[in-house]
Amino acid sequence: MNETDRRTAEGILYTDEYQLTMAQLYFRAGLHVRPAQFDHFFRTYPAYDGHQAGFCVNAGMGWLLDWMHGAAFRPEDIDCLRSTRNRAGQPVFGDDFLAWLAGNSPGFFDSLTIRAVPEGRVVHPNTPLTVVEGPLAVAQILETSLLSHLNYQTLVATKAARIKDSARGRVVMEFGLRRGQEKGANAGARAALIGGVDFTSNVGISHVLGFPPKGTHAHSMVQVFMSLGMSELAAFRAFADVYPDDCLLLVDTIDTLHSGIPNAITVFEELRRKGHQPSGIRMDSGDLAYLSIQAARMLNDAGFPDASIVLSNDLDELVIWQIITQISEEAARYGVDADHLINRLVYGVGTRLITSWGEPALGGVYKLVAVQDGGKWVPAIKISESAEKTPNPGNKRLWRLYDRRCKATADLISLDDEDPREAARITLRHPTDHARYRALERADLCEIEPLLVEVFREGRASEPAPIDEMRARRKADVERLDAGVKRLVNPHIYHVSLTQNLWDLKQKLIESAMQRSH
Amino acid sequence: MNETDRRTAEGILYTDEYQLTMAQLYFRAGLHVRPAQFDHFFRTYPAYDGHQAGFCVNAGMGWLLDWMHGAAFRPEDIDCLRSTRNRAGQPVFGDDFLAWLAGNSPGFFDSLTIRAVPEGRVVHPNTPLTVVEGPLAVAQILETSLLSHLNYQTLVATKAARIKDSARGRVVMEFGLRRGQEKGANAGARAALIGGVDFTSNVGISHVLGFPPKGTHAHSMVQVFMSLGMSELAAFRAFADVYPDDCLLLVDTIDTLHSGIPNAITVFEELRRKGHQPSGIRMDSGDLAYLSIQAARMLNDAGFPDASIVLSNDLDELVIWQIITQISEEAARYGVDADHLINRLVYGVGTRLITSWGEPALGGVYKLVAVQDGGKWVPAIKISESAEKTPNPGNKRLWRLYDRRCKATADLISLDDEDPREAARITLRHPTDHARYRALERADLCEIEPLLVEVFREGRASEPAPIDEMRARRKADVERLDAGVKRLVNPHIYHVSLTQNLWDLKQKLIESAMQRSH
Repeated sequence: MNETDRRTAEGILYTDEYQLTMAQLYFRAGLHVRPAQFDHFFRTYPAYDGHQAGFCVNAGMGWLLDWMHGAAFRPEDIDCLRSTRNRAGQPVFGDDFLAWLAGNSPGFFDSLTIRAVPEGRVVHPNTPLTVVEGPLAVAQILETSLLSHLNYQTLVATKAARIKDSARGRVVMEFGLRRGQEKGANAGARAALIGGVDFTSNVGISHVLGFPPKGTHAHSMVQVFMSLGMSELAAFRAFADVYPDDCLLLVDTIDTLHSGIPNAITVFEELRRKGHQPSGIRMDSGDLAYLSIQAARMLNDAGFPDASIVLSNDLDELVIWQIITQISEEAARYGVDADHLINRLVYGVGTRLITSWGEPALGGVYKLVAVQDGGKWVPAIKISESAEKTPNPGNKRLWRLYDRRCKATADLISLDDEDPREAARITLRHPTDHARYRALERADLCEIEPLLVEVFREGRASEPAPIDEMRARRKADVERLDAGVKRLVNPHIYHVSLTQNLWDLKQKLIESAMQRSH
Repeated sequence: MNETDRRTAEGILYTDEYQLTMAQLYFRAGLHVRPAQFDHFFRTYPAYDGHQAGFCVNAGMGWLLDWMHGAAFRPEDIDCLRSTRNRAGQPVFGDDFLAWLAGNSPGFFDSLTIRAVPEGRVVHPNTPLTVVEGPLAVAQILETSLLSHLNYQTLVATKAARIKDSARGRVVMEFGLRRGQEKGANAGARAALIGGVDFTSNVGISHVLGFPPKGTHAHSMVQVFMSLGMSELAAFRAFADVYPDDCLLLVDTIDTLHSGIPNAITVFEELRRKGHQPSGIRMDSGDLAYLSIQAARMLNDAGFPDASIVLSNDLDELVIWQIITQISEEAARYGVDADHLINRLVYGVGTRLITSWGEPALGGVYKLVAVQDGGKWVPAIKISESAEKTPNPGNKRLWRLYDRRCKATADLISLDDEDPREAARITLRHPTDHARYRALERADLCEIEPLLVEVFREGRASEPAPIDEMRARRKADVERLDAGVKRLVNPHIYHVSLTQNLWDLKQKLIESAMQRSH
């Protein structure tokens, strides 16, 4: 795609056609500037090959706000829309509507106000993660881009948080650029860093975000030397010559145990004699648990107990968990201390992180929850085939309740005029099952925290937080989760509840919608 | 990401760190301008939840060539690289190497020659889809971007071809923008069109590629009207007023059979009286096979046998196949002609196409196959843990053999100096199993077609083909596949073979590499 085309494809026309046809309809019906409110939320945690997550990590807003900044229906965009024909060969979009789009550009989205849960925070299903308020047609046109920016980054930040947890906090590197959805992999690298990955091999995005990119060499380097009549050892020596202080050698081009590791040790000894400390080895194939133990034994015997052992090759949180489990059980019989080995492991995670393997999309949605009529908010409701899919109506607030241990015990959705911090007793209603609720005394709680923060108003985005701050939020939030919620397989289900008032409103609306429709 | 950062993240630093560290090593070893050849290929077909495809559709080269055009290590990029520090706090990249990168910019890749299988062609595993030849360090630095551009588009074009086939050639629309990997969804929409999808809802990319974007309305439109005290019927009427010639109504906001379809029929009758032909209905939830039959019955009874029935909601090739199967078996008992109904169905395919659900990445790789030494090409080989993963060495050509019915019967990889069209008898060797081969007489074949075409030389890319031409290639190639190869589940395995000479070379290299490594 050339640069002109890219501006068309990634500018304000980065949207679905129906957003524009609906916007024109609202324009014709005089409803386009009617204040409306949309909630963005997801309905279920990702379930990786059936293993449902117990929490998600919110991400993506920073880049959405960048995209919104100065967004405009440029003359070129208007020309595109003007050229769109219906089945009868007539223009789909009228000049009046196109003039309105152009007349509100640049800064087309400046009339919106957005509240959101900050990036890096742990989040749960069916809670408003982003609340967009403003003219109906403007808020409608934002939908696709908002979902595109938030769904994917939240998906990857979540997967990264699981991987980091499974790696017991050891260094994890993101290697997925070649296996992502083209330029989307940059968003994936950002989300991976927010979610807990420590570095990425992606050079450009590392520099943009202020993280040092990481990488060593590929099999091809060894092959080049061998093709020219030289050996793996010569290739390793050449690498050590150029990178004596970052000498991390890929040892599985020929034979890991009989060629790669012995040759690496030879080079490490040469480096040590020259006063350099070798960095370590990487293994990208074979039985990584078994090979790690053997590599540790060989490196220990040669006097390199601190050399890192980097593992890569289709890793994800379950594979890492299994590798660590096997090492814990087997290392001792080879004379290797399991904990010492586990603490020198480093993980390179590619395909399965960047694609969120097992569940490659997050089903985040953007639903109308209220429209103003006569200066008053009227809650909107959609009666779906299932109670679970019926969104929570109206203008709302989101709270996190921490129990006496200061562990998060529930997320609570209230009406906009409710503040549970002021109540002595809080009733938590299950979002769909009328028989299930629990009551908490204020004294049972260590904290009630509001989660939504204003991020955009009158064309101004809030100051972007550094990635490190988002990482710190994630770390703090994950630590305040119950261990059961963090379990990789079959986690405990975190409570998401409604206040009694919101529950009552939802029931009333469902009833009246059902009556009107029958 | 702002515009300055985007140029850094999507320019020539859109790569993995190790490409640059290896390039510097080659530079220091005086090997950086040594002519080398890399093959791009994938090793296995995607297996969607275990259902392995029987063919792939090649895509992505056009955008890779756009990315390569004028690619440069700009001063800003050089500054990024200069700032990279090793563990000892010293610069990773030396001024000599950085000067070489900058000195060969813009047009950094202009010294490469690229041959490739054209976009839209059916392709198979372990065959060279792209062959890159040129200075070792330059070809190495291209790797990540090449894989990023080709892997994902080939993945989606393949999925789209399966979906189009399963839809029996009916109209399929791509709806996945909100569920892709952010801006990568634009590449997905392009690939979906190459693979067989007819339209996309993605506005910007539609205009860039010259396809009309498609879309109707969302549930939110009905909700707006209901929130303001009006009805679903009022919303439908408003839509019909603005779009009388494209009136496609979403009927499942409240109750598909008891509200949506009856209201749509009311509006369709009003449109007909005004001389317009209604377009149809869309259903996005519920049992789509059952509802399709009921919708057809109701629309037929009301005198709208030509109104389309658009289905959406997590569709993919297997879901569509099941819907069509159920309609075939059940429609008659409700007085609906199954074939007539199947021919009015239209499919909106979102998440499962854009993410290639079930196998969200194609494992395309880029492997060194030859290096020049003393003016002669020396084949390179990597001995992996499995024979299947050992790449085919050397400078090669790729051929497709068509049998007497003019169906594709095998892809044949030969050495560069071989032309099977000149042989009376061709031996096809299995790529790894020495006991398996077959012989074909030239008279058994209707055609032997070379598949690789030069697409880039001396800084000039070949004229890009229009998407329609790529679509035509795909259609023709899919028609020349045996039915068994196209089967969605458990397809017949297409033959990929080596010539006797290539087989002999590969065995010789494996043997000598094994000897050297032990």
